[in-house]
Amino acid sequence: MAEYQDDNIFAKILRDELPATRVFEDDDTLVFMDIMPRADGHCLVIPKTPCRNVLDASPEQLASVMNTVQKVSKAVMKGLDAEGVTIQQFNEAPGGQEVFHLHFHILPRRQGDVLRPPGQMGDLDQIAAVADKIRKALD
Amino acid sequence: MAEYQDDNIFAKILRDELPATRVFEDDDTLVFMDIMPRADGHCLVIPKTPCRNVLDASPEQLASVMNTVQKVSKAVMKGLDAEGVTIQQFNEAPGGQEVFHLHFHILPRRQGDVLRPPGQMGDLDQIAAVADKIRKALD
Repeated sequence: MAEYQDDNIFAKILRDELPATRVFEDDDTLVFMDIMPRADGHCLVIPKTPCRNVLDASPEQLASVMNTVQKVSKAVMKGLDAEGVTIQQFNEAPGGQEVFHLHFHILPRRQGDVLRPPGQMGDLDQIAAVADKIRKALD
Repeated sequence: MAEYQDDNIFAKILRDELPATRVFEDDDTLVFMDIMPRADGHCLVIPKTPCRNVLDASPEQLASVMNTVQKVSKAVMKGLDAEGVTIQQFNEAPGGQEVFHLHFHILPRRQGDVLRPPGQMGDLDQIAAVADKIRKALD
């Protein structure tokens, strides 16, 4: 497996070199909105420390990221009236990974919905409004 | 959210009331093959203790399950010459969940492959042969 490269876009978001609609952070993790949302409220959970994906993550990184995945999943259920949550996590390009900093996708779901195709830019104002609802549910 | 029900099929597998092609277990987790594999080597990681999904899991359940997800992901990379791993985890029926005992899907991937549609029974001999390779890579 390739080594971690600190010029990936999530590392740049962590260093504030790129903007992101941030939803939550604690000492170990950051949550921000996916700009190509496959569902309303689609957000990403990442560790603040470097690792490429699940294959090279430390037990501490996995535990802290999963605790935040749980916290934000509960918040989207409450804040967005979601009825379920789909979690996806991709490892290496053949596994679907495009940014090589460990991340978990949180997709709020409703009965009968269909995920939007990947790779379509969302409306940033709409994304910001949804992020607001998630933030309020986290309080 | 509904309460955990101990008549789900994964609880029955844990109690040996239903068969499964087991791949790995430790004190806290069990791994067995999905009988409707969307990719060769598609397996499931579950905690041995009851919880419905990520929304009600304890920090200990999340940590132990993720450590096993990592271990088995590395094993499928090695034992099946996979080039990547896709991890999926579904919460509540609208989120894609069909069995209400926490489980993570591990899908070994190769460049250019396409996941098979869900809900198609696999060939049990072929599944057993793939399980063997994963077991050997875990040793």
